[in-house]
Amino acid sequence: MSAVQVIPERSGTAFRLAAGERLVVIDPRGEQVADLLAFNADDTDEVISSGRTLDYAEKIWLTTGDLLYSNRSNVLLEIEEDTVGRHDFLLTPCSYDTFHHFYPGLEPHRGCFGNLVAALAPYGIVADRIPVAFNCFMNVPIDAETGRLRVLPPISRAGDHIAFRARRDLIVGLTACSAPDSNGGSFKPIHYRIEPAA
Amino acid sequence: MSAVQVIPERSGTAFRLAAGERLVVIDPRGEQVADLLAFNADDTDEVISSGRTLDYAEKIWLTTGDLLYSNRSNVLLEIEEDTVGRHDFLLTPCSYDTFHHFYPGLEPHRGCFGNLVAALAPYGIVADRIPVAFNCFMNVPIDAETGRLRVLPPISRAGDHIAFRARRDLIVGLTACSAPDSNGGSFKPIHYRIEPAA
Repeated sequence: MSAVQVIPERSGTAFRLAAGERLVVIDPRGEQVADLLAFNADDTDEVISSGRTLDYAEKIWLTTGDLLYSNRSNVLLEIEEDTVGRHDFLLTPCSYDTFHHFYPGLEPHRGCFGNLVAALAPYGIVADRIPVAFNCFMNVPIDAETGRLRVLPPISRAGDHIAFRARRDLIVGLTACSAPDSNGGSFKPIHYRIEPAA
Repeated sequence: MSAVQVIPERSGTAFRLAAGERLVVIDPRGEQVADLLAFNADDTDEVISSGRTLDYAEKIWLTTGDLLYSNRSNVLLEIEEDTVGRHDFLLTPCSYDTFHHFYPGLEPHRGCFGNLVAALAPYGIVADRIPVAFNCFMNVPIDAETGRLRVLPPISRAGDHIAFRARRDLIVGLTACSAPDSNGGSFKPIHYRIEPAA
């Protein structure tokens, strides 16, 4: 078993994930969101696309067996295991601007967006290239009549996880989310581990 | 009244829209989708963002009074008028690849994606920069229990329209959509006109 890595609360990281390797994202305490991005390591203009993925999947909530497509219609990741079954793929990572908007009384934070920009900079990926993230454990129900969305606490409990198999060599960005509403009001770490190709 | 422009069936165009000008997108026959993109004319790395917009709007279906935000959290367009009230902002424009996927028995078409790529090329905007479009008149209901989405015929009728006020100088891409399911099975033109700043 490979070592578990820790993403401290309200921070982010980036790393290479080789084709065939498996990324396991773990919520160690429960009710904590992790924003995930994946770029083609050989050409970072190719990136996961919510619009392509939801179109092919014909649903907005993905789980075991579902595929994450790129803006070029290639599969970058496959969800192999999921003990939660509720994640978001509609919303862009929280940012300094969204903090201003949603939490005017709180000290603004650079959020997952700022954390991803910093973590991805060494790979030559800039802020404007950050699309809608796959927000692991984020719980965003939709009212089917009005289209109204709500950001509720995740339904994940301590130890829950979601596992992705890489279909290409990837650069992955991953955070422990910084927005109060997304995480049930408290900020907690995210754990992950990388398992070798089967 | 400014002249009405015609986008022939299964094609697309691009044009400048100055800050303050109003773009009226018209469905002349009913049940026809128009994919819309808007880029900051002074820096085309800034583009409408579904993820930012849905987050700020706290809903997935936009209509009169709602704002379309960019990836940099700036308002690019405001919806000033809408006689339909159902549009999609979840899905990426149909493409050669999506035709292969959804319509294996039909001759593949470059779709709105290919049409937008061609129309935006003179402005220096390349395929990888095309995000989720604001799909005028596209009818994509969601099952709130399962997250399942369906692409149904638009509810727009002949003469229905949606009007956008530009908040910045923009490059706009606009199509008459090419995918059978999105348009009730037949391909029709889209009309538009640009009205001067109030």
